Amino acid sequence: MKRLFLTTLLLVLFAGMQLFGQVNTKTIEKKIDVLIEQLTLEEKVAMCHAQSKFSTPGVPRLGIPEIWMSDGPHGVRAEIAWDTWDHAGWTNDSCTAFPALTCLAATFNPNLSFKYGKAIGEEARYRKKDILLGPGVNIYRTPLNGRNFEYMGEDPYLASKLVVPYIKGVQENGVAACVKHYALNNQEHWRNHINVELSDRALYEIYLPAFKAAVLEGEVWAIMGAYNKIRGQFCCHNELMVNKILKGDWAFDGVLVTDWGATHDTKEAALYGLDMEMGTGTDGLTSSSKNAYDNYYLANPFLELLKSGEIDEFVVDDKVRRILRLMFRTNMDPTRTFGKMTNQQHFEVAREVATEGIVLLKNDKGFFPIDPAIKQTIAVIGENATRSMTIGGGSSELKTKHEISPLEGIQKRFKNARIIHAMGYASGPSVYGWVLPTNLNADSLKRAAIEVAAEADIVLFVGGLNKSHHQDCEGDDRTQFALPFGQDDLLNEILKVNKNTAFIMLSGNAVEMPWISKVKALVQAWYLGSEAGHAIADVISGDVNPSGKLPFSFPVKLEDNAAHSFGEISYPGDGINQEYKEDILVGYRWHDTKKIKPLFEFGYGLSYSTFKLLSAKTDKSTYKKGEVIKVSCEIKNTGKSKGSEVIQMYVNDVEASVLRPLKELKAFNKVNLNPGETKSVIMEIPVDELAFFDDSKMNWNLESGQFKLMLGTSSREIKKVLQIAVKN
Amino acid sequence: MKRLFLTTLLLVLFAGMQLFGQVNTKTIEKKIDVLIEQLTLEEKVAMCHAQSKFSTPGVPRLGIPEIWMSDGPHGVRAEIAWDTWDHAGWTNDSCTAFPALTCLAATFNPNLSFKYGKAIGEEARYRKKDILLGPGVNIYRTPLNGRNFEYMGEDPYLASKLVVPYIKGVQENGVAACVKHYALNNQEHWRNHINVELSDRALYEIYLPAFKAAVLEGEVWAIMGAYNKIRGQFCCHNELMVNKILKGDWAFDGVLVTDWGATHDTKEAALYGLDMEMGTGTDGLTSSSKNAYDNYYLANPFLELLKSGEIDEFVVDDKVRRILRLMFRTNMDPTRTFGKMTNQQHFEVAREVATEGIVLLKNDKGFFPIDPAIKQTIAVIGENATRSMTIGGGSSELKTKHEISPLEGIQKRFKNARIIHAMGYASGPSVYGWVLPTNLNADSLKRAAIEVAAEADIVLFVGGLNKSHHQDCEGDDRTQFALPFGQDDLLNEILKVNKNTAFIMLSGNAVEMPWISKVKALVQAWYLGSEAGHAIADVISGDVNPSGKLPFSFPVKLEDNAAHSFGEISYPGDGINQEYKEDILVGYRWHDTKKIKPLFEFGYGLSYSTFKLLSAKTDKSTYKKGEVIKVSCEIKNTGKSKGSEVIQMYVNDVEASVLRPLKELKAFNKVNLNPGETKSVIMEIPVDELAFFDDSKMNWNLESGQFKLMLGTSSREIKKVLQIAVKN
Repeated sequence: MKRLFLTTLLLVLFAGMQLFGQVNTKTIEKKIDVLIEQLTLEEKVAMCHAQSKFSTPGVPRLGIPEIWMSDGPHGVRAEIAWDTWDHAGWTNDSCTAFPALTCLAATFNPNLSFKYGKAIGEEARYRKKDILLGPGVNIYRTPLNGRNFEYMGEDPYLASKLVVPYIKGVQENGVAACVKHYALNNQEHWRNHINVELSDRALYEIYLPAFKAAVLEGEVWAIMGAYNKIRGQFCCHNELMVNKILKGDWAFDGVLVTDWGATHDTKEAALYGLDMEMGTGTDGLTSSSKNAYDNYYLANPFLELLKSGEIDEFVVDDKVRRILRLMFRTNMDPTRTFGKMTNQQHFEVAREVATEGIVLLKNDKGFFPIDPAIKQTIAVIGENATRSMTIGGGSSELKTKHEISPLEGIQKRFKNARIIHAMGYASGPSVYGWVLPTNLNADSLKRAAIEVAAEADIVLFVGGLNKSHHQDCEGDDRTQFALPFGQDDLLNEILKVNKNTAFIMLSGNAVEMPWISKVKALVQAWYLGSEAGHAIADVISGDVNPSGKLPFSFPVKLEDNAAHSFGEISYPGDGINQEYKEDILVGYRWHDTKKIKPLFEFGYGLSYSTFKLLSAKTDKSTYKKGEVIKVSCEIKNTGKSKGSEVIQMYVNDVEASVLRPLKELKAFNKVNLNPGETKSVIMEIPVDELAFFDDSKMNWNLESGQFKLMLGTSSREIKKVLQIAVKN
Repeated sequence: MKRLFLTTLLLVLFAGMQLFGQVNTKTIEKKIDVLIEQLTLEEKVAMCHAQSKFSTPGVPRLGIPEIWMSDGPHGVRAEIAWDTWDHAGWTNDSCTAFPALTCLAATFNPNLSFKYGKAIGEEARYRKKDILLGPGVNIYRTPLNGRNFEYMGEDPYLASKLVVPYIKGVQENGVAACVKHYALNNQEHWRNHINVELSDRALYEIYLPAFKAAVLEGEVWAIMGAYNKIRGQFCCHNELMVNKILKGDWAFDGVLVTDWGATHDTKEAALYGLDMEMGTGTDGLTSSSKNAYDNYYLANPFLELLKSGEIDEFVVDDKVRRILRLMFRTNMDPTRTFGKMTNQQHFEVAREVATEGIVLLKNDKGFFPIDPAIKQTIAVIGENATRSMTIGGGSSELKTKHEISPLEGIQKRFKNARIIHAMGYASGPSVYGWVLPTNLNADSLKRAAIEVAAEADIVLFVGGLNKSHHQDCEGDDRTQFALPFGQDDLLNEILKVNKNTAFIMLSGNAVEMPWISKVKALVQAWYLGSEAGHAIADVISGDVNPSGKLPFSFPVKLEDNAAHSFGEISYPGDGINQEYKEDILVGYRWHDTKKIKPLFEFGYGLSYSTFKLLSAKTDKSTYKKGEVIKVSCEIKNTGKSKGSEVIQMYVNDVEASVLRPLKELKAFNKVNLNPGETKSVIMEIPVDELAFFDDSKMNWNLESGQFKLMLGTSSREIKKVLQIAVKN
């Protein structure tokens, strides 16, 4: 009788949902209550783990759908086979490849992040994906981390401001974003087992804020746990990270998904907050045993503990509640739209992000822009001029509908110039089996490139890293800070025959630049996706004035980086543990505080125009807890071309009782100005954000005293310094 | 500007749809106008042909979804690979296997057909299928047709009454039914090229009515064209069948989909009504050429004719309009439900249809029911007692969550009996590679079965046909009317040692029965799907009183069948053409008119009870065109068990100016009665349905004169005859 009543109620509620569209939170929670009541223990457990590489089962008998996921975060990955990592061989899955997240971070433009999220979410929705596995917000700690290109740089504030609109954009489509990798997966080397030890201050001040913003401001529906351990426990089932912080302090009401194969223990997974287990075990399980997924930690072993009473049923109910909540927000929301894919607008978003994220790092004597009207010979040298940067790299690999190479983009834009090209070097077989043609070898490639360079008026060297193993690629770290494949040698040879040479760097990481003083110009051009060549041509032709800013520091040498300043125990660890010895002094916090000049600093990036900060003032001189500091300033475009400048505000706690970084970014604002134009800008900083995390109290501590507010156009180009007082 | 306006309008309309749920037809047509305006010629053409084995592309840039299809009609087929016929190897695609459509037809129960359609539609929806490729309503013309098991028998009226609720049930889920195979695909032999010649009368009176009912009463959203030719043109692009009749006379507003590989000409496909081309060419095309689908008749060749102006754009617009209309009814209807799969209700529907469709053909001295309380030895002999009948058979193959074999069903129900089993014969490797164990051979199997039979009190011989090639299987016809695999011999041997033997026949066709006088009982048990064994046990135990009626005639010998009475030109044809020489005299129309007694007649089926037709009368004695004849009668259960009887009303045109069949079914009603109970039944026949198709006028002709209305419990057990007059 009870069951009949519930079934009826369920039908009524379902009908209600279908008729009246999106329902409020309270209604959803009631529906979840009713559904959980209907589910068997076996069905609940089944929902907590994969049924294939990228899906979890629904409850067919009740019409609860399956959940389908896809790797992101730069585009929706090609369809993967049911139970192997092979591509499924579909032909409907060519996507728009958006620029890598380092590039998005370099735009310093939250509006673009929203556009990016909305567009990629539309593609995920069209492809019937319910969860997009991205974005990534692990903090850039070392330039050797193979996966930095998928993240948003070294600053927690910048990453926070950019992750939130990305999430909102994705989720507007009824597709869950899944922010990853929670947390401290800051290197790929030994990622599957390394245990990270760090101070609470470093954890709370540096590594958590972007995740916290994703949860509290972005209201993200899913989080992916990292592979590594923190303080002895694996991240996917970690009392501190999941139970206390994520689901406790932040009241996260979504789903914690594992990274693929990151679960290690049934009881810990059950009790320490894992909701959905994916990717455990090896490929091809179903071929040998149909029930391999039943052996997952959160499958039969979990069921047995539930049946024996060793784990209470409310534990699985909580997981199922979260999963159902995600479903009511996604595939059980009848009002969600249908999505779109590879439409012109998406390619335009990709191009806009790419163009705005490119950072002009050096530009002697106005080398750039190159006037497309001039008849001249331009040599484009380097493997990266033609190499696809959307394939490879690990799970973020993409099968894109088109990818404009740098060479192609330059050829299309500079029609009056004679474009000559040489590969210059070869990186060898790629992860996709590209093999060096047998009639080519390193010497002949080099000779050919030098001949081409000698013949040209201008040399554009398009080099950097790529998406192969031990480059910018998931699964392991880089093995050297210097450029690979003999590029430094090659460039030196080229510079001997043609001094009019600029470097267009494709990479997701800082690299060593022993030749920096000799090249005329340097453009940091990331991995730019489908529209890479167009975006590069946009910038170097002057069609678009560059406005990107570095989201991480470029040290002169590897030892200048904080993580590499404390020996192996700090990076990469001893094979079992590592300690974040640099503590809170990550990136520019280290360079500035320790007075180690970087090659290019955080927040740095040139324009074809010049800007001047005319004035700056605060609305008051003294603030109390809970108040907001309003900084107003005026900025003028003093150059000859329209352009954008990012005003950055860094804070220094003058009278801190603990060591605090010399500067910490607390606000930024990107302003677009016509030549001669002046704009007023107001930036707001909640006073509470001046606090530090106090280990002794295990809480944020806002100390009274003087604070400097430093306004500038990079972390080292400070133009105005204001002083305020905090009085509690 | 125009484009901008349209885009805005489009967005508004889309938003409207999403917000206010299902929209009316007029709104949909307006939306389609707007969408067609937005589409490029290339996009329109792309929508008219496959992108994979079972899907067609959408328009990703506009968010128009893809269309995904699945074979039916007895369950939703397992996931098939992108571009080969291999199973995709998914594990979420185990379905409920419903009984074959011959069984559904044998229920004579339209309410069950609705339940069947609703349940299978829910499964299709849960599996994200937009079109279910079924049901099939080709008329049973010869017992050799390998695909009869997928159809609804030999009578156009019965098929019409059963196809309509099936369609409505499926489409209630926002899944299109796709009625097949339009038309005259009445044999599998030479199906890819045979040209059918027949009279207009046969076409309109026998072969079209079920399709017409599907369109006009079922409002079906898709129709599948047949492989064969009719009057010289392939069915998928046939001026008469598609342009004139389907889309002209019947005003069908849905999509004509090809059978897989049934398209043969671009211009004909374009102009003679094909909307969607599927399955052209061979497997694995994408591996050799990514663009193989571009070579489809309705792909690039079509595009070229459109571009050259040889075919006007309104031709493709009409196809796209139909496809979009189907989408607004299915995957672009935001109000559609989520579907369900393999829930208990679905298995119950499968069991109900199976139990109600089983036909008791012979039951000497109350052999059935067998009392489960009795302690006795029951020998279950025959390969079909354990063989899966859901795999094999061609496109209707199923991967079911469970399949209860006859042996298993009998074992579960007759727990007091000792059940002994012998295979008896082996049909050899099945289509799925089952191989006869090497220690078994025909002789030893036979000997073992005879020993088992001799030992038993009762022998249940579970034999018949199976789903292998040249049995009941798509792709070719049976090669003999007799039972295969030495079953006749085996049965004769068994009958020598145990006369207490009954035959449980699993087949979708009539077979020769030289042993019929010697078996005590005979049950026609079709292919019953997931619940086969349960349903058989339900009937033979007496838990359910059988009420199925034969939906086609069982001739004594093959030559008694109409199609086989005119030599090879009638069946199977000369390799190029065939003529339906029997004309309108199909099935019982032939047997009755030609006075050739069948072994078991159309409409025949026994019960454990007895029924008596007490009275019958019409509401008037003379009728005019447009009026409805109301026949009322009383029926009584004169036996001792509750049961159902199907009252069948056949009509004879006493004064016809042309040859008309002696009897034609025009109404039926299934009545459930307790012992001793009497019920009144009213059956209605629109007078217009007494007309014949007049070749000379190419129209239906309702002649004045006397008509006999014959009420009975089979086509030969006529209990009451009424006479009326039609006066125009």
